[in-house]
Formats: sequence, C-alpha cells, structure tokens
Amino acid sequence: MMFIAMNRFKIKLGHEQDFVDIWKGRDSLLHTVPGFLEFHLLQGPSTDDFTLFSSHAKWASRDAFEAWTKSDAFRQAHAKAGGGKDIYLGPPQLECFEVVL
Amino acid sequence: MMFIAMNRFKIKLGHEQDFVDIWKGRDSLLHTVPGFLEFHLLQGPSTDDFTLFSSHAKWASRDAFEAWTKSDAFRQAHAKAGGGKDIYLGPPQLECFEVVL
Repeated sequence: MMFIAMNRFKIKLGHEQDFVDIWKGRDSLLHTVPGFLEFHLLQGPSTDDFTLFSSHAKWASRDAFEAWTKSDAFRQAHAKAGGGKDIYLGPPQLECFEVVL
Repeated sequence: MMFIAMNRFKIKLGHEQDFVDIWKGRDSLLHTVPGFLEFHLLQGPSTDDFTLFSSHAKWASRDAFEAWTKSDAFRQAHAKAGGGKDIYLGPPQLECFEVVL
C-alpha cells in the first residue's frame, strides 16, 4: 500500500523563503532510494506566529520508508538538518499515512 | 502553482472502515471539474481516542480549487456530508497548501 510521510514545520514569520532555500540547497539522495516515488515541499497557512510547511514524501510502501530511515542515505540527508535553527518554532512533527483510496 | 487541499478527520476508534466506506460510496464529480488533478484518502496514526485521516485533493492552482468550492458540483459533493456523524470526534479541519518545491 502506498505510503506518505509528512513532516510538519512551524516557521517563524518572515523566514519562509529562508526555509524554502534550505530545501532547495539540499543535495538529496532520495531519488536513488528503492521505493521512493515523489517529494514535494508544501507551504500552508500562516497564523500570527508562524507559517506551516509540510514536507511530503511518497513511498511505494511503509517498509520502503522504514528501510530508508535505517540507511546511510538517511543519515547523510539529515546530517545538516541542524542548520537554520532560529527559523523554527519548535521541532518538526512527523505524520505517516497509508493511501487507502 | 500546484495546490493541495487537505481535510483532517478524527475518526473514533473502531470506525475506520465505516469512514473509508463512506468515501468509497461517494458518487464524486471531482474528475469532471476543471483544474482537478488527483484525490487520495490517507489513513494516519491512531491515538487513544481516534484515528487521523486526511483527504487529499491536488489542484492545478488555488484559483481552480476556489472556483470549485463555489460550484454546483461542490454543493452536490457535500450534500450528503452529514451522514455517519457518530463516527467523528469533532469537525474536520481544512488545511490548504501551495506546492513550493
């Protein structure tokens, strides 16, 4: 069953472009990972404090996603994830979904 | 810019299949609507109280989505939305996203 991993980020107002630029600059290995299908970065609504973003990765199965989280490619992809800490309002929130229809 | 409208539903534990069946039984006109690209129903994590679902509609643009919300097709699609009220823990929460990468 297809699987979507979404990570929700709260970005301080005025830092939206900084956040997009961090993702643009990533040297992603995702496209080489077995079972990886598609990635999007989504910009959502803004509140008085933050703008919601969601990273959105589609996988062939939950197993493919979980295998990736245990791989060297995953560690490399997240090694630089500590950068730009000032722009975040709290840690990201991971939500995983199975595609049922 | 591509646009994704997600509606988040909290479904009482044990009613997951009822909820999926409601969507399966829908006589959707979405595929005839200009700018509509893709629909998925996603099943997310469960807490002690509910299982999170997200309906997930991809549109060619925010304008296409907004035009649909003002159309007869939208009213018809939502005319039966009051059914199965016992299975919901609170109202759905709409979140709209622009695809930035």
